[in-house]
Amino acid sequence: MLAAVIPGHAQRGPGIHQAASILGEMDSGFNAARCSGMTARGILMSDLSQVKALVFDVFGTVVDWRTSLIADFTAWGDKRGIKADWVALVDGWRAVYAASMDDVRKHPERGYVILDTLHRHSLEKLVEQLSISGLNDADLHHLTMGWHRLYPWADSVGGLTRLKTKYIISPLSNGNVALLTEMAKFAGLPWDLILSAELFEHYKPDPETYLGAARLLCQPPEQVMMVAAHNHDLKAAQKLGLKTAFVARPTEYGPLQKYDLEAKGDWDIVAKDFGELATRLGC
Amino acid sequence: MLAAVIPGHAQRGPGIHQAASILGEMDSGFNAARCSGMTARGILMSDLSQVKALVFDVFGTVVDWRTSLIADFTAWGDKRGIKADWVALVDGWRAVYAASMDDVRKHPERGYVILDTLHRHSLEKLVEQLSISGLNDADLHHLTMGWHRLYPWADSVGGLTRLKTKYIISPLSNGNVALLTEMAKFAGLPWDLILSAELFEHYKPDPETYLGAARLLCQPPEQVMMVAAHNHDLKAAQKLGLKTAFVARPTEYGPLQKYDLEAKGDWDIVAKDFGELATRLGC
Repeated sequence: MLAAVIPGHAQRGPGIHQAASILGEMDSGFNAARCSGMTARGILMSDLSQVKALVFDVFGTVVDWRTSLIADFTAWGDKRGIKADWVALVDGWRAVYAASMDDVRKHPERGYVILDTLHRHSLEKLVEQLSISGLNDADLHHLTMGWHRLYPWADSVGGLTRLKTKYIISPLSNGNVALLTEMAKFAGLPWDLILSAELFEHYKPDPETYLGAARLLCQPPEQVMMVAAHNHDLKAAQKLGLKTAFVARPTEYGPLQKYDLEAKGDWDIVAKDFGELATRLGC
Repeated sequence: MLAAVIPGHAQRGPGIHQAASILGEMDSGFNAARCSGMTARGILMSDLSQVKALVFDVFGTVVDWRTSLIADFTAWGDKRGIKADWVALVDGWRAVYAASMDDVRKHPERGYVILDTLHRHSLEKLVEQLSISGLNDADLHHLTMGWHRLYPWADSVGGLTRLKTKYIISPLSNGNVALLTEMAKFAGLPWDLILSAELFEHYKPDPETYLGAARLLCQPPEQVMMVAAHNHDLKAAQKLGLKTAFVARPTEYGPLQKYDLEAKGDWDIVAKDFGELATRLGC
């Protein structure tokens, strides 16, 4: 009954519950009736040819956050005259990412907090821990906004551009809407729309994110494919009925990366990069 | 206290209420603190040079819904062998648009209903009223999805493409997310993201839509410009602090259009088309 936890979208009128039950709406979170007269006829549950939209994890899957931030901060620090171990800062920052989102989950009474704000809070603690001195408020803001200035992997833009010709393409990221929008302009990512955890007020891998994306796209989960370099992201998506594609990014966490070096799950597609993904999907 | 009606986004930690009060956050609906360390310094309240994002009304402002639908349905009806007064259907459909959204406002207990669904319900009534016969469920779906297949005005794509080089551009429309996304692919509209009434579960001109857009963009209302061919839309946006641009579309409702033939308000920009708008905004 996951549909019940997604806010809004009650429907009116006769025939709606009937249509919904044909598609098993209450199990999948997809309400066929709300998307106007879509019937069971066109929906084949286990067929990649029915995929209409691809939603992408972004940090690590589409953009190389680690190399980008280290380069950005190193150049900025030199210019600004700030001495710091920027590699330690960047690695430390990402290391507390999951815990910062867990904190939001554990304290619903505080309301949802967007990733920009989590980043800023974590940064303030890290700067103290790493004894980086001389940073004023504008500097801290500039560093936090570094997460809006990330470069894509070499194959990302070309692959997305090909995929966009046949599919709706969107991020489905824990980054907030403004972060993802500014990053897209910075990196030239040709998204059709921006889907963010912020829209659902839940961070991945909470089910509300994957089902919320399918709901906004007016597609059943089976017609949406999650693309990620992280096995746990795909596992959560697959459990809810989404199709899955794994693209390894073995240097995301640097030369000593230990996790997600290869596909560990029964994913619908395993591709070496976005170019191969586009080819496999007929683009 | 409009900020209070927008769900979520409570913040934590000391110093946040302090920062918010500097910017008058509780009056404008913009929470500076949630967007990480942004300070009052960069925000000048009455300066077009501070505009960062343009949000567009879509039906009538960006696309010519009436001509598109009449042409689409006439061609389809001929092929399908359905005789009908398609002009009457299209005009009648749009005539009940405002009432159908009012019905959603008046019945919050039913939950938010997306525009595709309102369109479908209105269509079913109109088909009966106009005695159009021979339409099955798939036909009704096809006609409803006509609102996803609308052509832009001649200047729309060129103007948007220029504006996109300097600004974030997005629809801010009562169309649902899937409708706007599919329309963008159909019509070649180069949006950076899709902002829809659906995301706020309120239809324009409810304040939640304009303030919700600014909130997701992490911009104060003064840095967001609403672009519309409808004076009432701009009036609602201006009241909340957004900048405004009027572009007349004197044939939107056909040759006998009576309203919105000219700007009726103190809008920041009045332009004859999106090309002039781009020029006026330095693109």
